[in-house]
Amino acid sequence: MPVTFCTFVAMSNIKPSLVKGTRDFSPQEMVKRNHIFDTIKTVFKKYGYAEIQTPTMENLSTLTGKYGDEGDKLIFKILNSGDFLSKANPELLANANSQKLISSISEKALRYDLTVPFARYVVMHQNDISLPFKRFQVQPVWRADRPQKGRYREFYQCDVDVVGSDSLLNEAEFVLIYQEALSNLGLKDFTIKLNNRKILSGIAEIIGKPELIIDMTVAIDKLDKIGLDGVSKELLERGFTAADLEKLKPVILLQGSNDEKLNSLRAVLAESATGMNGIAEIETVFRYIKGLLQSNPELNPDLELDITLARGLNYYTGCIFEVKTNEAAMGSIGGGGRYDDLTGMFGLKGLTGVGISFGADRIYDVLLELNLFPESVAAGTKVLISNFDEAAELYALPIVQQLRNANIAAELYPSAAKLKKQMSYADAKNIPFVILIGSDEMQSGELTLKDMHSGQQDKLSLEAIIEKIKD
Amino acid sequence: MPVTFCTFVAMSNIKPSLVKGTRDFSPQEMVKRNHIFDTIKTVFKKYGYAEIQTPTMENLSTLTGKYGDEGDKLIFKILNSGDFLSKANPELLANANSQKLISSISEKALRYDLTVPFARYVVMHQNDISLPFKRFQVQPVWRADRPQKGRYREFYQCDVDVVGSDSLLNEAEFVLIYQEALSNLGLKDFTIKLNNRKILSGIAEIIGKPELIIDMTVAIDKLDKIGLDGVSKELLERGFTAADLEKLKPVILLQGSNDEKLNSLRAVLAESATGMNGIAEIETVFRYIKGLLQSNPELNPDLELDITLARGLNYYTGCIFEVKTNEAAMGSIGGGGRYDDLTGMFGLKGLTGVGISFGADRIYDVLLELNLFPESVAAGTKVLISNFDEAAELYALPIVQQLRNANIAAELYPSAAKLKKQMSYADAKNIPFVILIGSDEMQSGELTLKDMHSGQQDKLSLEAIIEKIKD
Repeated sequence: MPVTFCTFVAMSNIKPSLVKGTRDFSPQEMVKRNHIFDTIKTVFKKYGYAEIQTPTMENLSTLTGKYGDEGDKLIFKILNSGDFLSKANPELLANANSQKLISSISEKALRYDLTVPFARYVVMHQNDISLPFKRFQVQPVWRADRPQKGRYREFYQCDVDVVGSDSLLNEAEFVLIYQEALSNLGLKDFTIKLNNRKILSGIAEIIGKPELIIDMTVAIDKLDKIGLDGVSKELLERGFTAADLEKLKPVILLQGSNDEKLNSLRAVLAESATGMNGIAEIETVFRYIKGLLQSNPELNPDLELDITLARGLNYYTGCIFEVKTNEAAMGSIGGGGRYDDLTGMFGLKGLTGVGISFGADRIYDVLLELNLFPESVAAGTKVLISNFDEAAELYALPIVQQLRNANIAAELYPSAAKLKKQMSYADAKNIPFVILIGSDEMQSGELTLKDMHSGQQDKLSLEAIIEKIKD
Repeated sequence: MPVTFCTFVAMSNIKPSLVKGTRDFSPQEMVKRNHIFDTIKTVFKKYGYAEIQTPTMENLSTLTGKYGDEGDKLIFKILNSGDFLSKANPELLANANSQKLISSISEKALRYDLTVPFARYVVMHQNDISLPFKRFQVQPVWRADRPQKGRYREFYQCDVDVVGSDSLLNEAEFVLIYQEALSNLGLKDFTIKLNNRKILSGIAEIIGKPELIIDMTVAIDKLDKIGLDGVSKELLERGFTAADLEKLKPVILLQGSNDEKLNSLRAVLAESATGMNGIAEIETVFRYIKGLLQSNPELNPDLELDITLARGLNYYTGCIFEVKTNEAAMGSIGGGGRYDDLTGMFGLKGLTGVGISFGADRIYDVLLELNLFPESVAAGTKVLISNFDEAAELYALPIVQQLRNANIAAELYPSAAKLKKQMSYADAKNIPFVILIGSDEMQSGELTLKDMHSGQQDKLSLEAIIEKIKD
C-alpha cells in the first residue's frame, strides 16, 4: 500500500505532464525492462557480438533522405542554439514556409533508428574495426508519429548486425539467437518466419514483371484475409494478367512443410537463376542450423518458410526474418534481413550486412500478459530493518552493513516511525523480509525475522538470517 | 591489428561526421563504461535504491526557468513537427527575433539534468510511490555548451536520491555508497568532502551579512590558490569590512582534524542557532558512519569537513558532498547534498530530499589513466573456431554451439578465409583462445587449442577445452 503525500498541498496552477507519446518507467517497470534487455544482450554476447552506442543527436544531413519523404517528416529536429534566425532566409521567414526553413534553423536531429547511425559508425571507424564486424546496439529512438496504443514517440530498439561477411552461417545463427533469447525469456510458442528476396525476385522475373515485385508480395500477403479470389482480384488491379495469375497460383497456394514448399518453388523457379539462388540460400541456412543444433536436438526452432514475408523489401537483398508469438495477439516481435549495401549511403560501397532486431516494447507486453516475468526479477531490497527508537537504531547500524557485506540488499528504516508505517513501506516496496529489533532482541542477540509473505516470525542470529535470506 | 576495408572505395563527396560534442562508443569503450555503471548500480541496489528512467524529451515549460538564464540558453529545444511556423507571431518572424520566437515554434526540449525530471516524476507519481522514495537514475543529459576537453554536449549522469526522509542516516549512507562504489572500481586514494549549508549560513549570520554568504564562500574557497592576503582582499572587494575579516579569520584558517575543526567552529558559531544546528548535523552524520562501520573497521573513508565546499549553494539546504581523487589530476568525481524543497517548483511543497551523483565520464578517464580497468572487463568473445574448409566448418558447427551451451562466448569464423586473416581477426577482437580444426583434429576428436597470449598450443578434447576456458 503506497504511503501518499497527504500532508502536502499541491498547487493546482502548476501541473507537470509528460511529452505526448513518451513514458516514465517506475522501479517495477525498470526491473522488468532490464530483465528483457539483459537476457537478450547475454545471448548476443554468447554469439560473439559486442555492444556499441551512438549519440542521440545526429547531423540532420546524416538522417535526411534515408527514410523516404514520410520518414523525413517524422524526424525530430533540434533548433540551432543562439540566434538561430540570423542565418534564415528572410523571404522564407516572411512567407512562413516551415518546411523550407528547417535546414537553415536546424542542423541536428534525434536518431530515428539504429541502422543509419550504425552505417555512419562503420564508415567513420572503418580503419579501427576488424571485419566481419559483429555489433549490437540497444538504445532509444524517436519518431514524431501520432501516438497510439503500443506506439510511442520514444522507444527502444535492440539491433544485432554483422557487416563484412556474406556467409549464411550468420543468418543461421540469427535464427538461434531468436530461439535462445525468446526461450530464455520464457516464451514457448513462437514462429520464426524466413523468406528470401531472391525468391520473390525470381517469381516476378518468371512472370516477366520484375517491376511489380512489391505489388505482388503485398497482394499475396493477404491470402489469409481475403482468400484466393480476393488476392487474384487485387493482382489484376495491380497490373498482372490472367495468364500471370495462372503462373502465380502455385506460389500463392504454397503450403506444406518447408521441404514441400522448397520443392514446389524449385519447379516454379527452374528457369530463374536468381530464384534458384534464393532457394539455395534458404537450404544452406537450414543446413547450418541443423549442424549447429546437432548436439541440441531438444532445441527445435519452429522455422517457417513464408514467401509472403516482405518486410523492408526495398532494403533487403537476401534472407528476410520475422518472429511472431503464437501465445498472444501481437504483431511481429522481431525481424530483420540481409542488405547488400548498408554503407553505400555514406560512400562506402560493397559492404554486405545482415541483422535482426527485437521489439522490446512488444515483448514486454507479451511477457506481462503471459505472466512470464520471474518473481526474482521484482527483487529490489531483500530485507528491511525496523527502527523502533534511538537505541534500536544504534544497535541496527552495524547489522544493516553486515547484511550488505553479504551482498544482501538491505535498508534500515531511516526514522523511528510507527511500526505500521514501516510495514506499509516494506509492503509497497515488495520487500520479502523484515528484521524486528526491540529490547528483547538487543539483550539476547537473536533478531526477529518476519517473512512478509507467510507472516511467520522466527528468532535467529544474524548469521542464520544471512544464511536463510541468501537462498 | 585491425583488418581495414582496403578493397572498398570511399566516395570523397560524402563524409559523415558526428555532431560536435557528441561521441560514438566502441565495443572496447562500452565494456569499460558498462563496468563503471554496473559497479555503481550494484552498490545503489545494495543500499535499497531502485532504478527509474524518464523520457529524453520533456515539455519545454517543465525545464525553463529551473537552471537560470544561462542554463535556459543551454537547453536543446526541439522544433515542433509539421507546419511549425503557422502558430508563430508574424511580427517576431519579420523581426527575426529568435529568443522570443522559441516558445511558439518549440514545445519540447532535451533533458538538461536528472534532477528536474526526477522532481516532475515524484509530483506526477505521488500517489503510486511510497515514502521515503529511494531512486537511482543513470541516463544521458544534453547541454548546448561549448565543447572542450572533458566537456561534452551529451554525457551521462548517475544520480541517487531519497525524498521524503529527513534522517541524516541517508547522508551517512551516501558517504558509504561513495566509499564502496569507488573502492570497488579500484580507486584507493580519494577524499569525501563534507560541508553543511547551515554552517555557512551561521558564519554569515554571525558577521551580520547573511546576504553575502555566496561571496564569502567563493572567496574563502580560493585560500589554496591566493593565500590569506588574497582572500582578505577579495572579501573586502566583495563587501566585507576589516572587522568582518577579523571574525572570519579563524574560519578561513580552519585546519586540523575534523574534530578540531568542529571545536573551532563551535566557538565561532556559539551564538548562531543555525550554525550550531549545522555542526550538530555533521556530528550526527559522523556518528551514523561510525555505527555503520562498526564491523568493518578496515573501511575507513577519508572524510574531510571542508567549509569552503559550496557547490550548488543556491540549491542545497543541509549537508553538501564532494569527492576528489588524489591519484590523478581531475576535478571532483562526484557531489551532492540535501535540498529541502525539490518538488516545490511543481507545486508540491515541503518534501525534503538528499542525493549524490557520480561523474561517470571523469571516473572513466581516471580509471584509464591509472590502468584500473580489470582485464576481464575487456572480455568479449572467449574463443574463435577457425574455419579451414567446408568439412572443418561442418565439423565445427555443433562444437561452437556446445561452447555456447557452456556459457562461453564463442564464434566460428564465418568463411574459410586465410588462417592469417582469421588470426588477425582474433587479435583485433582480443579473443584469448583459438580452436584450430584440421583433418588430424577431425580424425582424433582432439582439437588444437591455441592460447593467443602465450602462443602455446595443446591438443585437447572439447570437454577439456570447456573446463580450461571456463576458468
